[in-house]
Amino acid sequence: MAADEAGAGADPGGRGRVTITEIARRAGVSVPTVSRVVNGRSDVSPQTRARVEDLLRRHGYRRRNSTSGGRAALLDLVFDDLDSPWAVEIIRGVEEAAHTAGVGTVVSAVHGRSGDAREWMRNLRARASAGVVLVMSVLEPVLHEELRILGVPLVVVDPAGSPALDVPTVGAANWSGGMAATRHLLALGHRRIGLISGPPRLLCSRARLDGCRAALEGAGVAVDDSLIVSGDFRPESGFSGCNALLDLPEPPTAVFAAGDQMALGAIEALRRRGLRVPEDMSVVGFDDLPAVRWSAPPLTTVRQPLADMGKLAVRTVLRLARGERPDSPRVELGTELIIRSSTAPPAKPGPTPSL
Amino acid sequence: MAADEAGAGADPGGRGRVTITEIARRAGVSVPTVSRVVNGRSDVSPQTRARVEDLLRRHGYRRRNSTSGGRAALLDLVFDDLDSPWAVEIIRGVEEAAHTAGVGTVVSAVHGRSGDAREWMRNLRARASAGVVLVMSVLEPVLHEELRILGVPLVVVDPAGSPALDVPTVGAANWSGGMAATRHLLALGHRRIGLISGPPRLLCSRARLDGCRAALEGAGVAVDDSLIVSGDFRPESGFSGCNALLDLPEPPTAVFAAGDQMALGAIEALRRRGLRVPEDMSVVGFDDLPAVRWSAPPLTTVRQPLADMGKLAVRTVLRLARGERPDSPRVELGTELIIRSSTAPPAKPGPTPSL
Repeated sequence: MAADEAGAGADPGGRGRVTITEIARRAGVSVPTVSRVVNGRSDVSPQTRARVEDLLRRHGYRRRNSTSGGRAALLDLVFDDLDSPWAVEIIRGVEEAAHTAGVGTVVSAVHGRSGDAREWMRNLRARASAGVVLVMSVLEPVLHEELRILGVPLVVVDPAGSPALDVPTVGAANWSGGMAATRHLLALGHRRIGLISGPPRLLCSRARLDGCRAALEGAGVAVDDSLIVSGDFRPESGFSGCNALLDLPEPPTAVFAAGDQMALGAIEALRRRGLRVPEDMSVVGFDDLPAVRWSAPPLTTVRQPLADMGKLAVRTVLRLARGERPDSPRVELGTELIIRSSTAPPAKPGPTPSL
Repeated sequence: MAADEAGAGADPGGRGRVTITEIARRAGVSVPTVSRVVNGRSDVSPQTRARVEDLLRRHGYRRRNSTSGGRAALLDLVFDDLDSPWAVEIIRGVEEAAHTAGVGTVVSAVHGRSGDAREWMRNLRARASAGVVLVMSVLEPVLHEELRILGVPLVVVDPAGSPALDVPTVGAANWSGGMAATRHLLALGHRRIGLISGPPRLLCSRARLDGCRAALEGAGVAVDDSLIVSGDFRPESGFSGCNALLDLPEPPTAVFAAGDQMALGAIEALRRRGLRVPEDMSVVGFDDLPAVRWSAPPLTTVRQPLADMGKLAVRTVLRLARGERPDSPRVELGTELIIRSSTAPPAKPGPTPSL
């Protein structure tokens, strides 16, 4: 959104959408093209860029988040639902980085409802947000396009590695994390390792599974597909997934649940059968949510740096708002194995791998 | 903060603090008095109110959160730290109620640092927030006074029942909750009931303790002060508090931890000693944080309606912003016992109470 303050036909309400349209008309280009120039993107011909920039200058176009506006800058942090297990960690990181930059953080949930998302978009325009940090891809493509036309920069924080969008994303090193979790179990002597995977449609699920497979193959352990079950990251699915593994003729001696909430569900399934963690079964999670530091037992898990991901997303969106380019359109921050009390050597060693 | 748009000496930047000062000067009253008139408070003499209101009218004073401003309204939700266990539940309720009212929610953390709080206050003024929802009393009194002078309404959400301020607060029925938790244990047959209390300086700690005592006395069970230890609501303090109770010559058969995080710490202390919950010891918490639905075992606890508290705070602050008065300056929402799997009859019944 532009605030055309000097040119003829200035929009006194400061809602510059008309102005950007007008500039597109005068330049003989499309509105998205003007938006691309405003955002400093490279996919515009030099001639078009020069013509549009000249018009922008002559009409006194000013980025709405200019510091000369006398308004405290805001950015928008948008979740699908605020009961996401990742929510508070990401909010913490985003608020901290935004605060450091003197920017306020507006937190919204759109509940997967298109009406809520559209209302949020209207409010975003009215409050002239400097940029948007989305958690996962919770907006319809048409709203992505609208943000682009408005010239509001967008960065996606993506703890689940959703399919790549044409916007910068900040994620975690899922493949490496899956490998680290599995190597830890292998080093303890486990050979029959069950995997409760995330939803197959999510890239993170695939990356964690592939990391797990790579570790097994690297140790010369044949991958047994009957030991792989799918969940949906909720505790209930870890509970049922662990029960399915326990019902196998030859159950695993350890379980890697590719999400902490599923790991908590798995621990509850074991507890209900009177099985102890880690004496009877080791459990590794993925996320390092605050709750698992005090699960019973405290969970060994792979840490996603959620707060750091939020901070990096803020720095990236503010760079974009200044017309700069991000260092990289897709950044993965490192994951880290955190060893607590839910993993131990197997009670009875599994079969020796055939090397 | 006022936007003086019609009167002489209008402040083009919309930073009406000068204007309110000017009105105070012309009316021959103090700035806080003008603020009291603007906020519809009763502690102003009728003569003064009439004089100030006349000046406000003549100078075209308009509340900054007037809907005619063409700006999307915002409210501020302020925490000390965003790793508060209550944070995400309160954010969820506040965001939902604010969204319904068409208001954006700016989330901030001031980290108990006076510099951060002052910077937040500067930004609050610059973005013309319609009101402030504070979680517990995390601001210095001088900043409370500044909000009052600015005419920005304030409501405190107070899950810990901090000492009352001269502002509306929304809390939970702590005494009733303490009583419900204890009655549940008594009904199961427990007579030696340990209490891990919150910090004695907080009113909620006292209220929960008093509710617990009242339940014991109602059942004719003598209160044994050696069974009462104090924590600070963190898991670590539940862990050490539970260990202290277990080290007593005659340990309790059940523990009421007056906060869920302390209950998780208590469960971990029991697990480390090889004691089972609830077979060897029952544990009740207080809060019903999302994490305890999948603790091992799922925790019996007293639910504080944190999201509802956030919603009520928003509705109250928006009433104040419209110049209306709150229904009550101090509201306590009901608590509810949620029975899960961490409580059971004692393995060996305690001594029969002398009725």
